[in-house]
Amino acid sequence: MDVRAGIDLGGTKILAVVVDGQHTVLADAKRPTPRDGGPEAVAAEIVETLLEATTSAKVDTKDLAGVGVGSPGAVDEEAGTVAHARNLPDWEKTFALADVLSDRIGAPVKVGNDVQVAVDAEFELGAGRPYSSFLGVFWGTGVGGGLILERKPWLGRGSAGEFGHMVIVRGGARCGCGRRGCIEAYAGRASMEGRARRAVEKGQKTELFEIMEAGGRDRLTSGVWAKALSRGDSLAVRLVERAVAALAAGIASAINLLDLEAVVIGGGLGTRLGPDYAKQIEDAMLPHLFVPERPPAVRIAQLGDLGGAIGASLLVANGSGG
Amino acid sequence: MDVRAGIDLGGTKILAVVVDGQHTVLADAKRPTPRDGGPEAVAAEIVETLLEATTSAKVDTKDLAGVGVGSPGAVDEEAGTVAHARNLPDWEKTFALADVLSDRIGAPVKVGNDVQVAVDAEFELGAGRPYSSFLGVFWGTGVGGGLILERKPWLGRGSAGEFGHMVIVRGGARCGCGRRGCIEAYAGRASMEGRARRAVEKGQKTELFEIMEAGGRDRLTSGVWAKALSRGDSLAVRLVERAVAALAAGIASAINLLDLEAVVIGGGLGTRLGPDYAKQIEDAMLPHLFVPERPPAVRIAQLGDLGGAIGASLLVANGSGG
Repeated sequence: MDVRAGIDLGGTKILAVVVDGQHTVLADAKRPTPRDGGPEAVAAEIVETLLEATTSAKVDTKDLAGVGVGSPGAVDEEAGTVAHARNLPDWEKTFALADVLSDRIGAPVKVGNDVQVAVDAEFELGAGRPYSSFLGVFWGTGVGGGLILERKPWLGRGSAGEFGHMVIVRGGARCGCGRRGCIEAYAGRASMEGRARRAVEKGQKTELFEIMEAGGRDRLTSGVWAKALSRGDSLAVRLVERAVAALAAGIASAINLLDLEAVVIGGGLGTRLGPDYAKQIEDAMLPHLFVPERPPAVRIAQLGDLGGAIGASLLVANGSGG
Repeated sequence: MDVRAGIDLGGTKILAVVVDGQHTVLADAKRPTPRDGGPEAVAAEIVETLLEATTSAKVDTKDLAGVGVGSPGAVDEEAGTVAHARNLPDWEKTFALADVLSDRIGAPVKVGNDVQVAVDAEFELGAGRPYSSFLGVFWGTGVGGGLILERKPWLGRGSAGEFGHMVIVRGGARCGCGRRGCIEAYAGRASMEGRARRAVEKGQKTELFEIMEAGGRDRLTSGVWAKALSRGDSLAVRLVERAVAALAAGIASAINLLDLEAVVIGGGLGTRLGPDYAKQIEDAMLPHLFVPERPPAVRIAQLGDLGGAIGASLLVANGSGG
């Protein structure tokens, strides 16, 4: 039986997909991530989300060839554990996520880094397919990254891919990570929202927060930014330009160092803002390239919102769960 | 016969070594790089420098297993050609350096990138030996770089390693490459000298230029900087601190992206200023690291001035020249 499942464990939502041997999505399900209760509560909710998807796909979890989980935090693939998952509730200590889930589900479970599985998915099934080396940039609440080098994920000593924390303005803006001048401090949606709120406090006019409230949101989601841009909201335009410039300088730095074939841009903002903004990033990158006559291809991630969960399912396809 | 030669072709000098099968240097020679006459003149001077070294080693060039040349510019290893070597006289067009030298010398010649061969030398014979992945930083007139990933040089599409042109201050200082905010704009010895000269024009006091003249130099060499630092010259101290900060931010960016085991710092300033300044770079890097509890090892290049030439000789050992 070749049916597998993939879980994208995020700070705000848990996404589950059930896929067949050809990576076709048979069903998917989505539930909010618990805001408290620690890793146990999150594990229970993962099981519920998975059951929703398997039920809809008419599969018993015991018949799954395996379940892959893409998780934030410090993931130990071998041990199947997750620690320091700051976006998840009370999840500092090491938690044996794979074992706990496997006991409940009755199928093998593998855990991987959330951004890296999304990069792997784009490499095997999405925009990265034509390339043997590329940088994946996930532009959302934070700015994540992942590398494919010579057709394999590059993990370094286990923590590679922190593209969002490359320094582009030494001594610059304060980042959510506590450091200064990181790409994420300019381009992460959380940083952008913080800056927008401070601008409003100083009397700047913007429709961003009206759009947010009209949509029943309490955060500036990618959709809110997209709508504000489409209305020509000047604060939104300026903050997105600033983010684009930061991403572009960081991408150019990575390319000058690694001379990769391509850059694949995903994440909530990346996929929502789409090709027009990918083109802006590309244009802003060129002046920083050391070999501008041979720029990398710049592509939008193809797998969209389900990319992380589909990528998680590949942990099983490629791993021990078969 | 296992005796080989290596040539380090630089903008100011040509260095030749003759080495045996155990990489022991049997003889070396050094001559200034011609300031005009184009590639032909440079090739002739390479032959002279090599002959000086082989004569001193009591070897006939025809008996060499091969000669490796580490060259600046755009090197095509397969074709044995060099183009766009901006630091060499009138060397924009593609020149068949390997063939021209091979005809004169009567031994096989291979050409490689000057910085990459120096990195390879540190990997195979020097400070990089214990590591399977590291970044080589060559801090001299410019700031060069090279990568070893999984025990192999990483060249990307042929132009990887431009560490010196990673952006650390978006919109910042003008770099010699014409772009803004590159590491080299802050840490390259040429940029540092330019800034020192402008400071003097504005009335700043410094002993840098007196030390230079007393040493019969017309440029601020690494030795001049070292002497000024040892005297506590405040302008020298400030400019070196600025360079250290730039290198540190760039190294941290590379580590956050790649999570490498080590950083090996070489080049004229790197080797001359030595472990104290490598320690300063390490200390300044830590605050920018995303995983500060597991920093990379920071080491000084071990092969010193001859590293480039020894590395060039490895082109033959590892290649077709045997």
